Amino acid sequence: MPDHAFHGSNLIAGERAHEGTFTFTATDPTTGASLPGSFHEATETEIDRALTAAEEAFEANQSQSPEAWATLLETMADEIEALGETLVQRVAAETALGEGRVRGERGRTTNQLRMFAHLVREGSWVDARIDPAIPDREPVPRPDVRRMLVPLGPVAVFGASNFPLAFSVAGGDTASALAAGCPVVVKAHPAHPGTSELVAEALQRAVEACGFHQGTFSLVHGVQPAVSLMLVRHPFLQAVGFTGSLKAGRAIFDAAAARPVPIPVYAEMGSVNPVFLLPDALAERGTALADGLADSVTLGAGQFCTNPGLVFGVAGDALDGFMQAVASELRDTSAFTMLHGGICKAYRDGVEAVAGVAGVEVAARVEAEPEAAGAAVFTTDAEVFFSEPRLHEEVFGPSTLVVRCADLAEMELLAATLEGNLTATLHGTSADLASANRLIQVLRRRVGRLILNGFPTGVEVCPSMHHGGPYPATTDVRSTSVGTAAIYRFARPICYQDFPQEALPATLRDQNERGIWRLINGEQTRADVTT
Amino acid sequence: MPDHAFHGSNLIAGERAHEGTFTFTATDPTTGASLPGSFHEATETEIDRALTAAEEAFEANQSQSPEAWATLLETMADEIEALGETLVQRVAAETALGEGRVRGERGRTTNQLRMFAHLVREGSWVDARIDPAIPDREPVPRPDVRRMLVPLGPVAVFGASNFPLAFSVAGGDTASALAAGCPVVVKAHPAHPGTSELVAEALQRAVEACGFHQGTFSLVHGVQPAVSLMLVRHPFLQAVGFTGSLKAGRAIFDAAAARPVPIPVYAEMGSVNPVFLLPDALAERGTALADGLADSVTLGAGQFCTNPGLVFGVAGDALDGFMQAVASELRDTSAFTMLHGGICKAYRDGVEAVAGVAGVEVAARVEAEPEAAGAAVFTTDAEVFFSEPRLHEEVFGPSTLVVRCADLAEMELLAATLEGNLTATLHGTSADLASANRLIQVLRRRVGRLILNGFPTGVEVCPSMHHGGPYPATTDVRSTSVGTAAIYRFARPICYQDFPQEALPATLRDQNERGIWRLINGEQTRADVTT
Repeated sequence: MPDHAFHGSNLIAGERAHEGTFTFTATDPTTGASLPGSFHEATETEIDRALTAAEEAFEANQSQSPEAWATLLETMADEIEALGETLVQRVAAETALGEGRVRGERGRTTNQLRMFAHLVREGSWVDARIDPAIPDREPVPRPDVRRMLVPLGPVAVFGASNFPLAFSVAGGDTASALAAGCPVVVKAHPAHPGTSELVAEALQRAVEACGFHQGTFSLVHGVQPAVSLMLVRHPFLQAVGFTGSLKAGRAIFDAAAARPVPIPVYAEMGSVNPVFLLPDALAERGTALADGLADSVTLGAGQFCTNPGLVFGVAGDALDGFMQAVASELRDTSAFTMLHGGICKAYRDGVEAVAGVAGVEVAARVEAEPEAAGAAVFTTDAEVFFSEPRLHEEVFGPSTLVVRCADLAEMELLAATLEGNLTATLHGTSADLASANRLIQVLRRRVGRLILNGFPTGVEVCPSMHHGGPYPATTDVRSTSVGTAAIYRFARPICYQDFPQEALPATLRDQNERGIWRLINGEQTRADVTT
Repeated sequence: MPDHAFHGSNLIAGERAHEGTFTFTATDPTTGASLPGSFHEATETEIDRALTAAEEAFEANQSQSPEAWATLLETMADEIEALGETLVQRVAAETALGEGRVRGERGRTTNQLRMFAHLVREGSWVDARIDPAIPDREPVPRPDVRRMLVPLGPVAVFGASNFPLAFSVAGGDTASALAAGCPVVVKAHPAHPGTSELVAEALQRAVEACGFHQGTFSLVHGVQPAVSLMLVRHPFLQAVGFTGSLKAGRAIFDAAAARPVPIPVYAEMGSVNPVFLLPDALAERGTALADGLADSVTLGAGQFCTNPGLVFGVAGDALDGFMQAVASELRDTSAFTMLHGGICKAYRDGVEAVAGVAGVEVAARVEAEPEAAGAAVFTTDAEVFFSEPRLHEEVFGPSTLVVRCADLAEMELLAATLEGNLTATLHGTSADLASANRLIQVLRRRVGRLILNGFPTGVEVCPSMHHGGPYPATTDVRSTSVGTAAIYRFARPICYQDFPQEALPATLRDQNERGIWRLINGEQTRADVTT
């Protein structure tokens, strides 16, 4: 690794702060050795400073144009790329993710920043609506009413461990919050503090280069839950983005709901991402499905929110053959180094718990040293699955459970017992699909995204992507954390009644100087208002 | 009143239910006498039946077309109109609102239903987004990704007392939830149970006439808070619309957040709706402003969420003259009969509390019998206002407080101490406005709607209206309860990946058969998808 000295400070509005006495280091999960840098957990005073600066930045940044925001996001992407190999190698060292994956994730991260830059520059996302005055309307005149979306205010983002770039310091939550015009305070994930420091400094350089208020971005470190709660309870905070465990996400949601002034929490949490193998597809291409499933289950050591943890199929020779093929594929995998020790232990405990359920058979289970994770595939029948709540819970890592159903009707029944998920996947031929209407309807209530003849891992970043779902997949079924619609999590409407042109925001004036789409008298148009 | 027999039952999926032993009657607030009808508070079993039917209806209604939903909403409007004088007279009797006001509110209610029918029939509200597959993209093909909004599921609506039609059984919450495709269970406000029964039966007739599942609409009665909490905690419930007090709204919000599966609560609660009189406007037209304020304060006995309860002006002769004119106008008003005894008592207590604050002077206070409410206008200076939290709270009714500020800077400082509000109003000339940028910026953070040279009462129902605001005005600053955007409270995205045309909802197919606006490859268009 290029020789980089980590200062280990919190980065608060452009200043390094290390007032706390609690420090921690990053661990290389491959070797168990400490990595360079001693990181300072933020104190309450430091968190207050970060939020106070964010609040000041929010006010100061009101004068920044959409073009300036777009340039800020693009400069952030450039600065991340400029970190070069220093970043790639630190991410790989802190996470045990391969350098190829890290480079790919870096590309996704900078693409997201540039996608939001494009969205902001285009400008129509603000959902501008104009109903001009009708002075001679009877019985009373209609006032001139105009509204648009404006940013909520300071946002806290909790970085995820499993995407140290794309769902972390400069990830989708940060990009979408900044795009909306909200300052961001990131709570770094303690498993990759060095990565967080590098990226945070890149963002700070962009903030400074673009002439934004320094409070536009801050980074705080923290290991203990108290740090997160201090952040969530700060009165200047207006919203939270979070990706992580159900337990931590719910604790943050509860704290936010209990505030004197409650604020929205967008927590993306657990998901088992069920896969349904419909009979014809299974008969036609069971081996290909087994290959695809094995790849999806073990991709990135199974450390994806969209990892397929449950598979449903109709019992019979085709499913048996499929099972054997999956088992055979997984048996050939080496043990995985997971992101950090805590995740590895949780995975091993989870696999052990599933294996211990009466009626669950082990189809394949790769042995691994205590610090590593072996892939596993289990099988059971519908009755056992139905009666064992443990089998409905996510086991985060390279493991899956295949549930044998008597028929399609039983598959539908089991689908109806599932909790909220990010995704559900169907494999089916046209004939299968024609008889799966009920199953699709059942699943639609329970997931954010339905995938046909593919696998849930690999989330396309595009305007139509929805990465969200009913609780416990997320705390807010209305929101997505991937794709351009993520910006709506951090905005709210403001309405102007009878304001003269010069006192209106440019977006709401008669002359549509930026040529954005607006709803005028209920009609979508890019035209000016003609009165 | 035409002779109408009230059965007093809950209306659950088309059936009358009266299993509970707790009954109550409506009171004529003008006379204190009981009105016909003995109303049965719903039991837990009845609430469970209503929600179970709503859940069944939600599934059954998936097959209903947008046209069918639009017709349902229009039929509901027709059925409400068909109630004729029976409805008008019962509303007037239960609320002491004049028949003219009741007819006007009925018009607003049916207009809202028809506005949502139009929105649903037009269809673009579903925010359809399509990113077609790019099979030859490198390094990996792009899948076909399509998403649209779908309804959340069963919604509970809590009727407000102050708009017995427009924010009650068939009010904006019900109309927008149905428009989104959500079944509705209304908890009737106990101050107008007869009105609620009449309207609920009208809605039920529409449900039946249009061939919708009977569980699409139910009405339950309840006086005790336990009934509301049973409803909010029911596992089938997916969202809540509420208009009422801060105390009740927060209790419902807290119960919903504490559920095993939390659900969104859209509670519209208190608001003081500050009015700022800028110096030139005050000097130029102080008397006209006094007339306008006095009218707005006393309209409907001051029983509007948007009633202007606080007025700020720069101390001096012009403000003194304004005060005298307001006082003189209010002194000429008769005592008001309020919506019900509870509101009247709360108003009298509130006025008494304001009058008792040291440093608050009574400019005018109309005497009234114990069952009535006299208008009141108080005045105080900035220092007293700043130090007395009681003066920041809403007094629901025909009362207002004028705060004398030293200058515009002090006005800005006081504005920054305000809690969240639905509206803020400025009165100013062009010269005033030019120096009010900072004040407008401060207010924009604290309200949902800014009004210039008007009064906050009278909320236009149109696509650009925003009726919402930061807490405690509402529990969800992102949402509106008036205007077409209210529909988004009850919807969530669903995403389809690689589904063939025949398995997609019609809205997401290549052929845009309804001609709606869709976002294809990031561009707004009404064209078909061409691949």
